[in-house]
Amino acid sequence: MAKKGAKSEDRKKNDGREKSKPTALTELLRVPAGHPVDLSSYDATATPGGPADKSAGLKDTARMGEDLADLQERLWAASTAGDGRRLLLVLQGMDTSGKGGTVKHVIGLFNPSGCRISAFKAPTPEERKHDFLWRIRRALPHPGEIGIFDRSHYEDVLIGRVRELAPHREINDRYGQIDRFEKSLTDEGVTVVKCFLHISYDQQRRRLLERLDNPDKHWKFNPGDIEERALWPAYQQAYEIALARCSTPQAPWYLVPADRKWYRNWAISRLLLEHLTALDPRYPKADFDVEASRERLLASD
Amino acid sequence: MAKKGAKSEDRKKNDGREKSKPTALTELLRVPAGHPVDLSSYDATATPGGPADKSAGLKDTARMGEDLADLQERLWAASTAGDGRRLLLVLQGMDTSGKGGTVKHVIGLFNPSGCRISAFKAPTPEERKHDFLWRIRRALPHPGEIGIFDRSHYEDVLIGRVRELAPHREINDRYGQIDRFEKSLTDEGVTVVKCFLHISYDQQRRRLLERLDNPDKHWKFNPGDIEERALWPAYQQAYEIALARCSTPQAPWYLVPADRKWYRNWAISRLLLEHLTALDPRYPKADFDVEASRERLLASD
Repeated sequence: MAKKGAKSEDRKKNDGREKSKPTALTELLRVPAGHPVDLSSYDATATPGGPADKSAGLKDTARMGEDLADLQERLWAASTAGDGRRLLLVLQGMDTSGKGGTVKHVIGLFNPSGCRISAFKAPTPEERKHDFLWRIRRALPHPGEIGIFDRSHYEDVLIGRVRELAPHREINDRYGQIDRFEKSLTDEGVTVVKCFLHISYDQQRRRLLERLDNPDKHWKFNPGDIEERALWPAYQQAYEIALARCSTPQAPWYLVPADRKWYRNWAISRLLLEHLTALDPRYPKADFDVEASRERLLASD
Repeated sequence: MAKKGAKSEDRKKNDGREKSKPTALTELLRVPAGHPVDLSSYDATATPGGPADKSAGLKDTARMGEDLADLQERLWAASTAGDGRRLLLVLQGMDTSGKGGTVKHVIGLFNPSGCRISAFKAPTPEERKHDFLWRIRRALPHPGEIGIFDRSHYEDVLIGRVRELAPHREINDRYGQIDRFEKSLTDEGVTVVKCFLHISYDQQRRRLLERLDNPDKHWKFNPGDIEERALWPAYQQAYEIALARCSTPQAPWYLVPADRKWYRNWAISRLLLEHLTALDPRYPKADFDVEASRERLLASD
């Protein structure tokens, strides 16, 4: 955990075991299951477990890109031989927290043909006719794929809660539904990687102002963003509840400090790398006679 | 056109007008409408209009990546203000011609969130219940998106013709249906970029052997590939007919020599760049009061 003030203590601990394996980022950023979450205790500018600076971060992220693409190819190859495993990256965060930038810069490291990306906006009339997980189920990654959700079923306990889009009791029931849904996913071989991109209130203002200052970014701005921003405390609280209630052992939440874009990209790349490495997908063995095929090919001219 | 033996003539012509604009690749590779096509007259190792060598080609392709991503963002931004335009890249070619490699290396240059990629395999039972364009229509890019077809409706006049999967007359009717379908797409604002990846018979053998020689690539190999290869002349003929009959002014075919992977990636990047540049998508103007929003934001602290 990267709580404010914990930095020097961490360093001390590491100094005592210099040659030990570095702590996995999945451990460092994981929101512990079953504990209340206080977002104000997390520094959005922190870089827990990260490289020393931006330059090193960009370099390391690019370097990870090769490993990520290689692991993705293995995952895909394994699926052609019946391996049902896949990964789902869930991105949540306030406006301007960098969900889109993560897709561009992190998912951009993968082979696009194996990525299934869905951006969830306000539900359509058709989607409203069904339960809130209906549209989510239709967008899940297939075996061998990397699925990416830019917003997700969590919106139904975030904006849903803040804007009171459903009765309080129904909202409260959704946390359990989400846990059971995600448990069913992991049972089916879906590795669920949920990242909350944590930005500060000030950083959001800077980013919104940047959009206003640059005419090429006006299209990204919506005056409604300011209304949402006015509800910042309510959203933070809704996130705290969602993180606390839905960070389960099978599908934990990762709290990614996101004021620094280079760290955000590095950290999410690293989380994906650790998960894919743990999956250890293997190229399948040939289910045909390689030598016979070679001879037939050589005879073909 | 990059016909064999035409190189020195081209050079002579260019020498006479050294300072003229280089010929657009869309012109150089375009299959002329309404003429028979003889694939054996096209050298699959040629590099028409391309950089001097592989090293320059890789460099130029990477450089184009920035322009492509920028144009893609503009196209997407324009769509948020009602611009319905989009682009559809259709990739066709024999096994190992590099359709998948093109998606990885060329489409990999774009922001994945704006790409809609579909790989068409043998139709499913559900797809068979509908006409051959049904599944194609469902996979079209939405406004602002780059659509990519790895194989396409052309399979229904390629393997469909070679394997006689439908009555001859029905196959023959499909060329006209395809032309009308593609015309309707261009009417709706879809720029259709159709690339035939032209490899030689020898090059296919080399690439299939490479897959056999590397256990990590066995999953890409199917003994059925050798049966398809035995039908090479029939497939070449089916391609010649499809290219000749469906290279229309609104949706021309581009014949991309593809024995050299670096040239293939460079050429397709370049074709996309020329088309996107011609579309000239613009960031939309703000439809809100920028100054008022700025003031509200500054007051929000």
